[in-house]
Amino acid sequence: MASSKYEYVKQYELDDTLLPGCWIVIRLDGRGFTKFSDLHGFEKPNDKRALDLMDECAREVMNEFPDIRLAYGESDEYSFVLARNTDMYGRRAAKLVSLIVSCFTANYVARWPAHLPDTPLRASPMFDGRAVCYPLDSNLRDYLAWRQADTHINNQYNTCFWALVKSGKTPAEAQDTLKGTQAAFKNELLFREFGINYAHLPEQFKKGSVVTRQKALVEVKQKEDGTPVLRERSVPTVLYVDIIRDEFWEGNPQLLAP
Amino acid sequence: MASSKYEYVKQYELDDTLLPGCWIVIRLDGRGFTKFSDLHGFEKPNDKRALDLMDECAREVMNEFPDIRLAYGESDEYSFVLARNTDMYGRRAAKLVSLIVSCFTANYVARWPAHLPDTPLRASPMFDGRAVCYPLDSNLRDYLAWRQADTHINNQYNTCFWALVKSGKTPAEAQDTLKGTQAAFKNELLFREFGINYAHLPEQFKKGSVVTRQKALVEVKQKEDGTPVLRERSVPTVLYVDIIRDEFWEGNPQLLAP
Amino acid sequence: MASSKYEYVKQYELDDTLLPGCWIVIRLDGRGFTKFSDLHGFEKPNDKRALDLMDECAREVMNEFPDIRLAYGESDEYSFVLARNTDMYGRRAAKLVSLIVSCFTANYVARWPAHLPDTPLRASPMFDGRAVCYPLDSNLRDYLAWRQADTHINNQYNTCFWALVKSGKTPAEAQDTLKGTQAAFKNELLFREFGINYAHLPEQFKKGSVVTRQKALVEVKQKEDGTPVLRERSVPTVLYVDIIRDEFWEGNPQLLAP
Amino acid sequence: MASSKYEYVKQYELDDTLLPGCWIVIRLDGRGFTKFSDLHGFEKPNDKRALDLMDECAREVMNEFPDIRLAYGESDEYSFVLARNTDMYGRRAAKLVSLIVSCFTANYVARWPAHLPDTPLRASPMFDGRAVCYPLDSNLRDYLAWRQADTHINNQYNTCFWALVKSGKTPAEAQDTLKGTQAAFKNELLFREFGINYAHLPEQFKKGSVVTRQKALVEVKQKEDGTPVLRERSVPTVLYVDIIRDEFWEGNPQLLAP
Repeated sequence: MASSKYEYVKQYELDDTLLPGCWIVIRLDGRGFTKFSDLHGFEKPNDKRALDLMDECAREVMNEFPDIRLAYGESDEYSFVLARNTDMYGRRAAKLVSLIVSCFTANYVARWPAHLPDTPLRASPMFDGRAVCYPLDSNLRDYLAWRQADTHINNQYNTCFWALVKSGKTPAEAQDTLKGTQAAFKNELLFREFGINYAHLPEQFKKGSVVTRQKALVEVKQKEDGTPVLRERSVPTVLYVDIIRDEFWEGNPQLLAP
Repeated sequence: MASSKYEYVKQYELDDTLLPGCWIVIRLDGRGFTKFSDLHGFEKPNDKRALDLMDECAREVMNEFPDIRLAYGESDEYSFVLARNTDMYGRRAAKLVSLIVSCFTANYVARWPAHLPDTPLRASPMFDGRAVCYPLDSNLRDYLAWRQADTHINNQYNTCFWALVKSGKTPAEAQDTLKGTQAAFKNELLFREFGINYAHLPEQFKKGSVVTRQKALVEVKQKEDGTPVLRERSVPTVLYVDIIRDEFWEGNPQLLAP
Repeated sequence: MASSKYEYVKQYELDDTLLPGCWIVIRLDGRGFTKFSDLHGFEKPNDKRALDLMDECAREVMNEFPDIRLAYGESDEYSFVLARNTDMYGRRAAKLVSLIVSCFTANYVARWPAHLPDTPLRASPMFDGRAVCYPLDSNLRDYLAWRQADTHINNQYNTCFWALVKSGKTPAEAQDTLKGTQAAFKNELLFREFGINYAHLPEQFKKGSVVTRQKALVEVKQKEDGTPVLRERSVPTVLYVDIIRDEFWEGNPQLLAP
Repeated sequence: MASSKYEYVKQYELDDTLLPGCWIVIRLDGRGFTKFSDLHGFEKPNDKRALDLMDECAREVMNEFPDIRLAYGESDEYSFVLARNTDMYGRRAAKLVSLIVSCFTANYVARWPAHLPDTPLRASPMFDGRAVCYPLDSNLRDYLAWRQADTHINNQYNTCFWALVKSGKTPAEAQDTLKGTQAAFKNELLFREFGINYAHLPEQFKKGSVVTRQKALVEVKQKEDGTPVLRERSVPTVLYVDIIRDEFWEGNPQLLAP
C-alpha cells in the first residue's frame, strides 16, 4: 500500500500567500448569532457576560500568536491585526484564518461556564473568518475606524430598538419609529422616553473592545516559601477607548511601528 | 460619526471563490498535537478516546453542513469532501475553511469531557485548515487513497516505534531500528518480538475513520405518553473500511453522483 | 551598486498557478475593434480578409505552442485550449495569457499586409486575454458550444442589421426592426427583403473557425537538385465546422484524450 | 441554437482583481531573446537600434494607457508602473498584463522597420508579462532600484564578456576570466586591456531607459496656411538617468503623488 502513486494530489494545493508588506486583518464573525443569542437568553441590546467572554477569547488568541499587534471587537465579531511584516505561517491565508478562528472558538467553549455559569451551552458557537490586506497605515486606521463607527451606530440603534420593544412596541413598530432617523433624534428619544442618557452607557457597549499589549507585572513562578515571583511582561489588555482619533495612535506608537 | 468615509476599506476584501464544478476537500490538522497529546497523556501509538472524539466532531460537522458528502479522519487530521456542485457560502474558500474548522473545534472542546472524563482540558486544541479542489472523481479517490495509505504507513511505523520504546529502547534507538525498513520487516518485528499480530489490531487504527450518511431510524420527538416517534433520517455514521479499492465506491454510488 | 538589498521585492511576486488537471482556455478579445474596423474600412457584417488574418494568427500560435490542442475563433476573439495536463510554464496564468496574446498580436501586425495589402495599418491592434479552467470534458465542450452558438446568433443578427442599414435604414431603425425577433423571422427577413438565403452564407461566417492539428505532407528541406523533401507533420488547420454536436468529437478523439 | 444552456461556463471565470491601494508594476520580458537577437544580428553587448525600438514601444504603451506613471526598461524587459489608485480595467491582473503586452508587441513589430531598416523581421517577437503589487512608495523605489542595479551589473559584465570574446577568447574562457570578480576589476580590465573607459559608455547602456511624462509643445493640428498649431501636452519622454538616488524622485514629485 504505497502512497507514492497518490502523492501527485498534493500539487493541487495552490498557494494562498498574502501580499508581503501589508497589514493583515483577520476578522471573524459569529455564524447565526441572532439565533444563538436567543437560544441562550442573551440580554438585549448588549449582554455584558457574552461581550466579556468574547474579549477574553481575543486576549487568549493574542497570547497564542505574538505577531498580533491589536484586536478590536464588537458584538459577535473580532478583528485581529497582524504586524505588517509578519511571516507567521508564511502569510498563508487559510492557515492564518483557520488557526485564529480555531483558537478563538476553543476558548469560547472552554471559558463559557466561567462567564455564563447558569447557562449551559446548548449549541456549537461558530465563527467564520476572512483575511484582508491593507497597504497603508491610513488604510488600517480607516478599517478600524469603520468597525468602531459601526459599533456606535449599531449600539445606538439597538439601544433605542430594545427600549421601544421592552416598552411594549412590536419589533415592526420599533423599526418604523427609528427608520431614517439621525443620531440626535435617537439620543433624545432615549432620554425623553426612557430616561436613558446615551453618554452614560458603558464604554464597552459604545466603543467596543480594543485589545493591546500592555506592560504588567505577572507571576511567573513561586519561591519555595510561596512568595510569588513577579516579572514585567507584555499582557493583552482590553480597553474601551476611541481608536478613531489620533490620540490613541500617538499614545501607542508601537502599534504602527515597522 | 458616519461610517461612510471609511467604507472604502471593504473593497480590499478580495474574492476567493473556488473553481466551480470541482470536488472541494477541506482538510484540518491539529496544531502542535504532539505536545497537546503528551500534555493530556494520550496513549501511544493510538488513543481510542481521542480518536472517538475526533470522529464525533466530524459527525457533528456533517450534521451542520449538509453539503458534505464524506469525511475521512486519522490521528489529528480530518478531511471533509463537499459535493462537486455545492454552492455553500458561494464556494468562498475562507468561509468554508473557517466555519468547518470552527464547528470542529467547538465540538472538540464541548465533547472532550464525555470522551476523556478523567482528563481536564489543559490547553486550547487548535486546528488549521485548507481547501483543495479536485476536478475529476479519480482525483478525489486518489486524494482519499493517499490519506488512507498514509494512515496505514504511519500506524505501522508508530506501532513498532512505541513497542520498541515501551520495551526499553530510547526513541533514537527505536528510530534507528526502523529506518528504511519495509512493511514485511515491521510486521515480523511486531510478531516475533512483541507477539503483536498487526492484522488483528483495531480497524480504526489501521484504516482510519470514514464518515458517510447512512439511513437510520431517529427519534424526532416523543408522544405525550413518552413513546418515541421514529423517522428514517440520513445520519453521519463512522465506518472503519477500505476506501482505496472499488468495492466501497460501488457500494456507495451516491458519494460520487452528480 | 549591489542589487542584493533590493532583491526582497521579488517576494512580492505571488503565485498564480492554475489548478492542475483542468482544461485551460485562454481567450483573447480585440480591444476597441469596432473603432479599429471602422478605421480600416472592414466590410460589414464580416470582412473575410480580417477573419483570415485572425485564423492565420491562431495557426501561428498553435505552431509556437504545441500544448494547444484546439482553437476556436469568431469576429475579433479567439480561444485556445491547452491540454488538461499541460505543464507549459508551470501553468502560471500570467505567463500563459501574456505569451499567447503576444504571439497572436505579433503575427497580426506582421501578416496584416499579406491579407489587407491595400490598407495600411493605422493603429495598434490590441488584444486582452484571460485564462479559465474547466474541470470536465463536458464543461470544455459546453464552453466551445457557447462560443459557437454566440457566433451564430451574432452573425444572424449582424447580417440582418447591415442589410437593413445598407438598404437605407438608420442604425436605430435597423435595431428597432430586429429587437426581440426570433431566428425564423430574421431568416425570412433576409430572404424576402434582400434575397439572401442565410443557409448559403459562407460557413466561416456562420460557424466561426476551428483550428485542429491535421496530418499533412510538409516540405522540410530541399535536395541539392531542388526537389522538395516532404515529411508528414501535424499541421494546424482551419475548418469551419460544427463543434456543438457529437460528430466532431467522435471524429477527433485525440482532442479530449488524456 | 440557444446559447443559454451553455452560459453557465461563464461562472468559471474567477476574479483576479489586484489589491487596491498598491502600486502595480507590469513587467514584460522578451521570450527567447538570446536566440531572437542572434537571428537578427543584434550588436553585442548592446544594440542601440533594438534598445531604441524598445523605448519607442514603451512610449506608445504610455500614450495608450494614461494611468501608467513611469516605465523603466533595459535589454529585452520593460516595467510599467500604474498609479497606486488606478481603476484601469478594474485592476484585473489578466486584463492589465495582456493589454500592455499586446500593445507593446504590436508596436515592436510595426516599428521594427523604422529602427532596423536593413534587417527583415524573421521571427515573432514575444513578451511574457506579470503583475506585481507594491504597498509602499519605498517598495516601489526599491523595485526600480533593483532593476537599475541589475542593468548596471549586467552591462558591466556583458561589456567585459564581449570585449574578451571579440579579442579572441572563447565564451567559456571569457566566463572563467570574469567569474567572481568585482566591479573594480572589471573596470580595470576594460581600461587596461581594451582601452574602454566604462564611465564614458552611453548612459542608455549603463542606466537603462526611464520614461516619464514631460510637458512639451506638440503639434495638434495645422492652420489652413500650413502653420502648425502647438499646444503644451504631457508627452512620454525617455531619459537615461539614475532612479536609485533621491534626486530623481525629488525632481519628479508627481510620480509618487497620491
